[in-house]
Amino acid sequence: MRPIRNFYAGPCALPLSVLRRIQDEMLDFRGTGMSVMEISHRAAPVVDLIEETTGGLKRLMGLGDEYEVLLLQGGSSLQFAMMPMNFSGPGEIVAYVDSGLWAKKAMEEARLLGRDVRVVASSAPDHRRIPADWETVSDARYLHLCTNNTIVGTQFSSAMIDALPRGGPVIMADMSSDLLSRRIDHGKFGLIYAHTQKSFGAAGVTIVALRRDLLDRIRDPMAAMLDYRTHVKARSNYNTPPVFAIYVVRLMLDWLEGEIGGIEAMERINRAKAARIYDLIDGSNFYHAPVEAGSRSMMNAVFYLPNPDLEKRFVAEAEQAGIVGLGGHRKWGGCRASLYNAVTLAEVEDLAGFMGEFVAANG
Amino acid sequence: MRPIRNFYAGPCALPLSVLRRIQDEMLDFRGTGMSVMEISHRAAPVVDLIEETTGGLKRLMGLGDEYEVLLLQGGSSLQFAMMPMNFSGPGEIVAYVDSGLWAKKAMEEARLLGRDVRVVASSAPDHRRIPADWETVSDARYLHLCTNNTIVGTQFSSAMIDALPRGGPVIMADMSSDLLSRRIDHGKFGLIYAHTQKSFGAAGVTIVALRRDLLDRIRDPMAAMLDYRTHVKARSNYNTPPVFAIYVVRLMLDWLEGEIGGIEAMERINRAKAARIYDLIDGSNFYHAPVEAGSRSMMNAVFYLPNPDLEKRFVAEAEQAGIVGLGGHRKWGGCRASLYNAVTLAEVEDLAGFMGEFVAANG
Repeated sequence: MRPIRNFYAGPCALPLSVLRRIQDEMLDFRGTGMSVMEISHRAAPVVDLIEETTGGLKRLMGLGDEYEVLLLQGGSSLQFAMMPMNFSGPGEIVAYVDSGLWAKKAMEEARLLGRDVRVVASSAPDHRRIPADWETVSDARYLHLCTNNTIVGTQFSSAMIDALPRGGPVIMADMSSDLLSRRIDHGKFGLIYAHTQKSFGAAGVTIVALRRDLLDRIRDPMAAMLDYRTHVKARSNYNTPPVFAIYVVRLMLDWLEGEIGGIEAMERINRAKAARIYDLIDGSNFYHAPVEAGSRSMMNAVFYLPNPDLEKRFVAEAEQAGIVGLGGHRKWGGCRASLYNAVTLAEVEDLAGFMGEFVAANG
Repeated sequence: MRPIRNFYAGPCALPLSVLRRIQDEMLDFRGTGMSVMEISHRAAPVVDLIEETTGGLKRLMGLGDEYEVLLLQGGSSLQFAMMPMNFSGPGEIVAYVDSGLWAKKAMEEARLLGRDVRVVASSAPDHRRIPADWETVSDARYLHLCTNNTIVGTQFSSAMIDALPRGGPVIMADMSSDLLSRRIDHGKFGLIYAHTQKSFGAAGVTIVALRRDLLDRIRDPMAAMLDYRTHVKARSNYNTPPVFAIYVVRLMLDWLEGEIGGIEAMERINRAKAARIYDLIDGSNFYHAPVEAGSRSMMNAVFYLPNPDLEKRFVAEAEQAGIVGLGGHRKWGGCRASLYNAVTLAEVEDLAGFMGEFVAANG
């Protein structure tokens, strides 16, 4: 086990084997005698790397040829703007589910750009569940939701995703914090975007999966870099892509398929990790998980201690024990353990052990 | 010397000492016990890294407190759009110097966005010099130029930059391929942008230096991620920044100041490298440099051989000898040796040796 157990909400832990491979290949990427950072993006080793990465992502998401997978920059925050800019005009109706702070940020961006934003479902202000009652807005250009809400610790379950309506507005989703963490039906979505620094890479590249027929809906004029068509046409190599960040995703795909054994195996591990922490919380009179049972995130376990002073001590003592990243979001408070793909079950056991000891000493 | 001598036009060579340091620190960034990629962007080690990097860039550019230095994403291609979007409205006049293919791309983006683009100077269609005769367009929102034209191999000399007019429209410059390669008066410019994968980093982060008073000219509404004010306010940490790419820039600044000895020392080395190649070309009846003497780029030496077949053989035989990246741009042809900061004089000597042998065998 590594000396540090890393529960940061992102950027966050990467597998030790992936870091070691980066180290090993630093001076010689695939026999070129150069670092992957030193090779022209028009040269075969980098072109191949991009194709392998988009291909691998498509395969792991189970998407067919009606989809394009793109590697972009700017994080999900730029997608918050690109989505309304590409798929709607000023004054047009767009529909959003308000399930947490990031879902809200996406919505605010559409509003800033002059779109007529309709909130079709909301769990505001406390956001302690995925909202259940949905309004129908059939004339919306798209319906946007965020599958996992890192700050409040809620997540659309696979069953909730299966139950999403077909035939209405095309559904677009921010999956920044749970893409490739479990098996879901990605075909429910016309557009999926995710930055990579949670479960399958480092910060610096953003994945977009896009159903090809939607490209016809994009209106001119669009700035070239903000137009999804540019990147489809250039196969994610329009201008110099963030090669190193793509390389890390490529290694993470190898790790996921090779070492872990694929998405289903990953989901089993992720379920076990989350169960370990939530069971401990539910079995205690000391820790308290605010999120309703059916809406709890497998990725981010948010919990409170009896008071903020104890929470501060909990975070500080954990850090002294080499367990880092347990502070809640600066806008939300409380504590949070993020359990993304690269966090091992052994590390979660370690956290559980610490949580037990902390109750014994302070409960 | 490394087995490969890398003359790629970008991404391109990085110093061996920087790659080794990345290797050494991969599992433990500054005593955290984690990789720099694994640490939250809100945690002190990453916040410090960002501040050190923007501070170092400002110092090396010799910019005062009236400037902000930002670390963004999307490359210069996104700056081609952000510049007109932030500093002009549709139909308004913006002025551009047409000195090469990238300068043209910047201009086309402004035109696509509905700006009234005025070409104040042009060396089209052959682009073999920096244009000398400039029209005055005093009512333009800004005047844009590209200091080094990688494809055609021209560069604004330091004297040309000193001679740029003051008092007219604010001057904005793409310095993607020569920032930090020589000492120039950066205070001539209101906005400077540069991606980092040529002379001071890897691909994935874009440097913007911006004179603070220009922030007041930005009009609402702007998408948050495309608005320079967002990134000034958030100190380049609005959403998760490309931490690893920033880290590489940070190491490159150390290398530049520590190992090389600063910008003036760097410029001396760069001048010596360029002189070695241009002198060889000018002294031969075999190689031919198309660019006029006063406009030649110190960064990209473009040259032709007597015919395209020989050029193909030259590039292929060089590659077999471990000298890579000598092919001209796919839109321009010929040959090109890119001599960015990390290329050593010894490597340039090696290239010169090969060029001499090639003439002996084929001249």
